[in-house]
Amino acid sequence: MSAQPSDLLREAQTLSTTVTSPIRGSRKAYVRGSRDDLRVPMREVLLTDTPAMFGAEANAPFTVYDTSGPYTDAAFTADLVAGLPKLRAAWIAERGDTELLANRTSEFGRRHAEAELLAGVRFPNLPKPRRAKAGANVTQMHYARQGIVTPEMEFIAVRENLRRGEAAARGENRKPDALRGGALAAQHPGQAFGASIPREITPEFVRDEVARGRAIIPCNINHPETEPMIIGRNFLTKINANIGTSAVTSSIAEEVEKMVWAIRWGGDTVMDLSTGKYIHETREWIVRNSPAPIGTVPIYQALEKVGGDAEALTWELFRDTLIEQAEQGVDYFTIHAGVLLRFVPLTARRITGIVSRGGSIMAKWCLAHHQESFLYTHFEDMCEIMKAYDVAFSLGDGLRPGCIADANDEAQFAELDTLGELTDIAWKHDVQVMIEGPGHVPMHLIKENMERQLEKCHEAPFYTLGPLTTDIAPGYDHITSAIGAAMIGWYGTAMLCYVTPKEHLGLPDKDDVREGIVAYKIAAHAADLGKGHPGAQARDNALSKARFEFRWEDQFNLGLDPEKAKEFHDETLPKDAAKTAHFCSMCGPKFCSMKITQDVRDYAREHGVDALTAIDEGMAEKASEFRGQGGEVYRPA
Amino acid sequence: MSAQPSDLLREAQTLSTTVTSPIRGSRKAYVRGSRDDLRVPMREVLLTDTPAMFGAEANAPFTVYDTSGPYTDAAFTADLVAGLPKLRAAWIAERGDTELLANRTSEFGRRHAEAELLAGVRFPNLPKPRRAKAGANVTQMHYARQGIVTPEMEFIAVRENLRRGEAAARGENRKPDALRGGALAAQHPGQAFGASIPREITPEFVRDEVARGRAIIPCNINHPETEPMIIGRNFLTKINANIGTSAVTSSIAEEVEKMVWAIRWGGDTVMDLSTGKYIHETREWIVRNSPAPIGTVPIYQALEKVGGDAEALTWELFRDTLIEQAEQGVDYFTIHAGVLLRFVPLTARRITGIVSRGGSIMAKWCLAHHQESFLYTHFEDMCEIMKAYDVAFSLGDGLRPGCIADANDEAQFAELDTLGELTDIAWKHDVQVMIEGPGHVPMHLIKENMERQLEKCHEAPFYTLGPLTTDIAPGYDHITSAIGAAMIGWYGTAMLCYVTPKEHLGLPDKDDVREGIVAYKIAAHAADLGKGHPGAQARDNALSKARFEFRWEDQFNLGLDPEKAKEFHDETLPKDAAKTAHFCSMCGPKFCSMKITQDVRDYAREHGVDALTAIDEGMAEKASEFRGQGGEVYRPA
Repeated sequence: MSAQPSDLLREAQTLSTTVTSPIRGSRKAYVRGSRDDLRVPMREVLLTDTPAMFGAEANAPFTVYDTSGPYTDAAFTADLVAGLPKLRAAWIAERGDTELLANRTSEFGRRHAEAELLAGVRFPNLPKPRRAKAGANVTQMHYARQGIVTPEMEFIAVRENLRRGEAAARGENRKPDALRGGALAAQHPGQAFGASIPREITPEFVRDEVARGRAIIPCNINHPETEPMIIGRNFLTKINANIGTSAVTSSIAEEVEKMVWAIRWGGDTVMDLSTGKYIHETREWIVRNSPAPIGTVPIYQALEKVGGDAEALTWELFRDTLIEQAEQGVDYFTIHAGVLLRFVPLTARRITGIVSRGGSIMAKWCLAHHQESFLYTHFEDMCEIMKAYDVAFSLGDGLRPGCIADANDEAQFAELDTLGELTDIAWKHDVQVMIEGPGHVPMHLIKENMERQLEKCHEAPFYTLGPLTTDIAPGYDHITSAIGAAMIGWYGTAMLCYVTPKEHLGLPDKDDVREGIVAYKIAAHAADLGKGHPGAQARDNALSKARFEFRWEDQFNLGLDPEKAKEFHDETLPKDAAKTAHFCSMCGPKFCSMKITQDVRDYAREHGVDALTAIDEGMAEKASEFRGQGGEVYRPA
Repeated sequence: MSAQPSDLLREAQTLSTTVTSPIRGSRKAYVRGSRDDLRVPMREVLLTDTPAMFGAEANAPFTVYDTSGPYTDAAFTADLVAGLPKLRAAWIAERGDTELLANRTSEFGRRHAEAELLAGVRFPNLPKPRRAKAGANVTQMHYARQGIVTPEMEFIAVRENLRRGEAAARGENRKPDALRGGALAAQHPGQAFGASIPREITPEFVRDEVARGRAIIPCNINHPETEPMIIGRNFLTKINANIGTSAVTSSIAEEVEKMVWAIRWGGDTVMDLSTGKYIHETREWIVRNSPAPIGTVPIYQALEKVGGDAEALTWELFRDTLIEQAEQGVDYFTIHAGVLLRFVPLTARRITGIVSRGGSIMAKWCLAHHQESFLYTHFEDMCEIMKAYDVAFSLGDGLRPGCIADANDEAQFAELDTLGELTDIAWKHDVQVMIEGPGHVPMHLIKENMERQLEKCHEAPFYTLGPLTTDIAPGYDHITSAIGAAMIGWYGTAMLCYVTPKEHLGLPDKDDVREGIVAYKIAAHAADLGKGHPGAQARDNALSKARFEFRWEDQFNLGLDPEKAKEFHDETLPKDAAKTAHFCSMCGPKFCSMKITQDVRDYAREHGVDALTAIDEGMAEKASEFRGQGGEVYRPA
């Protein structure tokens, strides 16, 4: 950022209404849990009634999982300087195992909290940092293993359930039980990998999955603003969106707005990959205003601190960076601790070598020092930090393949196996862990990634970038990778890191972020359907029912991007009347398969389905009867 | 079309340069076969040299399969009134089994060829129709079964091979054999379904696949302008793009331009789904100017002829429509002959009923007449027509599912089984057949579609629409369906019918067509990689090598959409200098994983790979040596 600190605060208190207005056709709703301060936000899509010709029925609001935070609540007014309400503050405090610190532990953090020069850019209401009391372990995994169901776990249980049972019933009210999802239930490939999603997600189930390490709840005690969410393959598949400062940024609001934009479209977590000036300060603004967990790659900032000279990195400096960020409230850290010295030469013959920034930094360090990286040698020291704040590890795949030819090679799998060993160590400390995965992988090699990850990393959640299933479509890598993401999600990956259309080419703008997120929401939902996630199909059913009944507004609003759907429809049929037209723009009013289907349906209802199947009896009168009725749908009900 | 005939010809001779200029960074090349008039068009992507720091080597032009026809040949000038050169005319004539007719066989065709009123819109140089001599069968399948290798088959063998061996070697020249594609070779799921793609496609292999019915060559004897192509799962996966007249069309050139646009981006076949006025005339212009096979759904035009009253359709009228279109040169017909009366009620309880237009027309007819459709009862009569012109059947899936909930249901599979029976009948006549497939199918139910199709339809090529893997993303159905298309292509589907972002919402414009086609080229190529198609990976390797070496222009031009790739790059780094910059815009010049990889590579080359792996020996001097060299990449070569 080249702007001056004072510039950055210029618009600090205003987010544009494009990110703060309620989502088209929806309203915010809250479901209360076992205590007054446990209110789980959801989004209700408001539906219109079924028209008379299709049976005239009321359609109840359809509830969907909501990542967008308070910003889309019509009753909420964003105040970036105040930050979001501290939803979890009481839960954290009442556990009694943490203490507020008078001062920041990190030297860098202290300096930045105090420097006069930074007053103009610093978040004005800096909270005091909180840390575990001496000897305490404040991770959700630790609580889970003690048998404690935290409010965070209950919150997640409510959030994941979404009262899907009722929703499904509403969406499927045209289909008898025998036909409804029978085929779906028959196959559940997730089960082949030991996945087992219960009909109802209970707080106890959440606790159990976290205790086993099969799921993580990223929720730093210094980020009480988070709306708790879970990453694990027995829950809804999640997606991450990356943001980062850019050179042309003019205000803090603009940086925060990127995060709000990302969660508006469905980002479950947001990684702040900023480099350059004021990243500490920008991060504080983002964390204070984010209801979603924030992830970072601390080595990026550490590298900035040593002027970009990878060899000059030290454990001491890195340690201070971890604590600096942990006390700001970062919820998970990408740590490339699996890049071992002996793995580096395995990349020498690759077409694209090492493509991970973090991986290449560590490889360079290892080569220069000819020893294992401090991330590996100090892994247990890191665990001590993580458990004092409940920061989760996202063990980075520094040696991930950067092209199809390099997929599933020795370097990649050697690192994966090492990440499995590190998982064991983290779990010894009750520290939460997820494992990062590739990258670029052709379709037939994707499954092996998932199988090996589950085996070697003992079912710790997998978090993959795509994978891209071909290298030949720069400009469309959100699509090359949505294919791989859907597949690996189906196989059991818990969180999918999005890829935007600008991948490999440039920095994503707002439209790219939206395209990338929607592509990944598609992949995640397709995966949930494939896994047979109970209730996932209810939304498909509700939308398809709306589509069949020509409830255009409902079709738009039940979709992942109501605005674009409406805009596309308007391009062909711009008039408002077309929104209530009982035909679609493709075929026009003259011949329409939906109308004919309704014919069939009406006929079957009036005569019984069996009447039509009795073709052998040559009931020619049926035909004349049908023709006698005009053979048309448009009979006033 | 509301325009007058005279308007339609207004710009008849001019295509815009956006569809006639050579593709960015490429030139047309032709590979000669065994005879002078057998010249197979290809596209050569011109590459720059590898920069000195990456080893300074020349990169030979990279050859790719080319669907764009003569339009992208710098030496060709399009003349729509003349039509394309008749590439296959001599091949067809010299077989001696056809005759030119003095007049059109179809009454409708005759009327339209003669009507004064249509003079202003009619293609001016109407060719005389050609038909098989009495008793002759002129299908490629018939020749194949006689053991005859036609020039069409040889053309295809050359086209499919693409001299991939050399291309692969060029693209992979950094990778020793041991690493190159070893993992790829290990798994070949296509083989699980009996697919077996030879290292080299020979004319004899083409003949054999066509004889077995495992592949089809859509090439009507009245469409000698076609550049022969093949649809079968032991060949490159193909894609189809749909076009159709729209109400706002102002000229014939505009209609033809849609087709040229579609093949420019990679459409292997084009379906003309026009309805409305002048569809006969517009089709003639399209066929005369199309190097790609043209498919239609004749029932659409038949329905127009009876004023949209499905019940009034008759075999006689339909028969005349088939012959009308066959004598124009349509290469394949979608025929919904599998919609049987007893299957119709099976759709009554579906959420979206019957979504196929053709399917719903036939369902309505069956109900109204209470008898099996004329498509079913006259199927052998149709075979007689098909074999007199070599039109291929594309047996339509009139009962395909229109939403996730309806996937793989009884109605869908009952129809599929019937299509298998019809395949047997067609093959008895040596008529070429492919089978259309869904639609909307969740990921875990896709494989069952392929397996059942292969079994019930005896390995006739499968041609699917998507499938869409979720219903919840109107506006993004090119993505929901690219996921399903890639998967079913991997499982063995031979051709993928594209879906544009406007699906379900409106009529696609040019940008939508481009987005849809590129999404499907991605799916098809990902499928080819997944099937282990020999040589498919060469393009990925060439592009990734260019990416690693910061050959930006090569990276753009080797991609599926060079223009968009360049445009995206320019948004972030607009200056020309950035095109030769040895860093990417994401990380900037300061730290770049590619540079570090080159470090590793140089180091390994100088010291031997083993030197680095000998970590146990504690060779600290290696480290100091590395640091002594500056630990940087930028040493002048």
